[in-house]
Amino acid sequence: MDFKSYIRDVPDFPKPGILFKDITPLLQEPKALKMAADALVEGLTDKGIDKVVGMESRGFLFGPLLAERLGAGFVPIRKPGKLPYKTLNESYDLEYGTDTLEIHVDGIEEGDKVLIHDDVLATGGTAFATTKLVENLGGIIVQCNFLIELSFLNGRERIHSFEVKSLITY
Amino acid sequence: MDFKSYIRDVPDFPKPGILFKDITPLLQEPKALKMAADALVEGLTDKGIDKVVGMESRGFLFGPLLAERLGAGFVPIRKPGKLPYKTLNESYDLEYGTDTLEIHVDGIEEGDKVLIHDDVLATGGTAFATTKLVENLGGIIVQCNFLIELSFLNGRERIHSFEVKSLITY
Repeated sequence: MDFKSYIRDVPDFPKPGILFKDITPLLQEPKALKMAADALVEGLTDKGIDKVVGMESRGFLFGPLLAERLGAGFVPIRKPGKLPYKTLNESYDLEYGTDTLEIHVDGIEEGDKVLIHDDVLATGGTAFATTKLVENLGGIIVQCNFLIELSFLNGRERIHSFEVKSLITY
Repeated sequence: MDFKSYIRDVPDFPKPGILFKDITPLLQEPKALKMAADALVEGLTDKGIDKVVGMESRGFLFGPLLAERLGAGFVPIRKPGKLPYKTLNESYDLEYGTDTLEIHVDGIEEGDKVLIHDDVLATGGTAFATTKLVENLGGIIVQCNFLIELSFLNGRERIHSFEVKSLITY
């Protein structure tokens, strides 16, 4: 399936000069939604994945679809103050300043095999912080996968010690 | 399945005096995740649903799972400035002030049969605003469904002209 044909370019979003990759046409088309989720778990069904970890909020869209296909649980990564129970947090650098992500301390058990998923791999800051959270809880990262990779931003380098897969590359 | 046993009470979150219903234990348990999604589409599989509409961000968790089960597309409802393409917006009252939700104008086509889904029905403000967005784009609302209903907040009254279903009621 030509997944790229379901991604819409929106110029100057969220700010002038940025060409935003809009995944909503893909979500809206039942066959594309299903086939993208199928493709994202290709090669993973026999890996014994225990948890799929997805980042707020667009990582929540495919995360549970992948978890169900893998017979795994889903664990959300959220911005500070959103997760109600005890959390572990990790800060990462932005262009200006820093940001923080959180995971519930009981989201991952020691030795859990983990798939990390987000919709877009850009600079890799979010993905890298997520790998730290998962490893700090004793999880073993099997793969980081993404619907879209913006390869010109070199996010893959930031998480080079892990297996990285993306469905659509620009 | 006793879904309630997978919901964790977190006292004083997000502020003192509130007993928060945490759905993350349910998400983390593969069987509970699957069975909750199955239960949420019960009675809907022969209704010809075209779109499942889910609200940011916890409505994104089950929305695509329901859409896939129904052979429908998924359409996100987001807070202002998050959706990149042309949007329709709707404001609703909060305890103090107002809030606004947005939908892409091409998210619903005239005559689309729609299932609205969110994780929690509380006061019904978000759900009511979402019904307006869907109807203003010509959608026909078949059901509004929720993983959890906080019945003491009377949200069901706010959307009484629609079929409302919730899996877990407090």
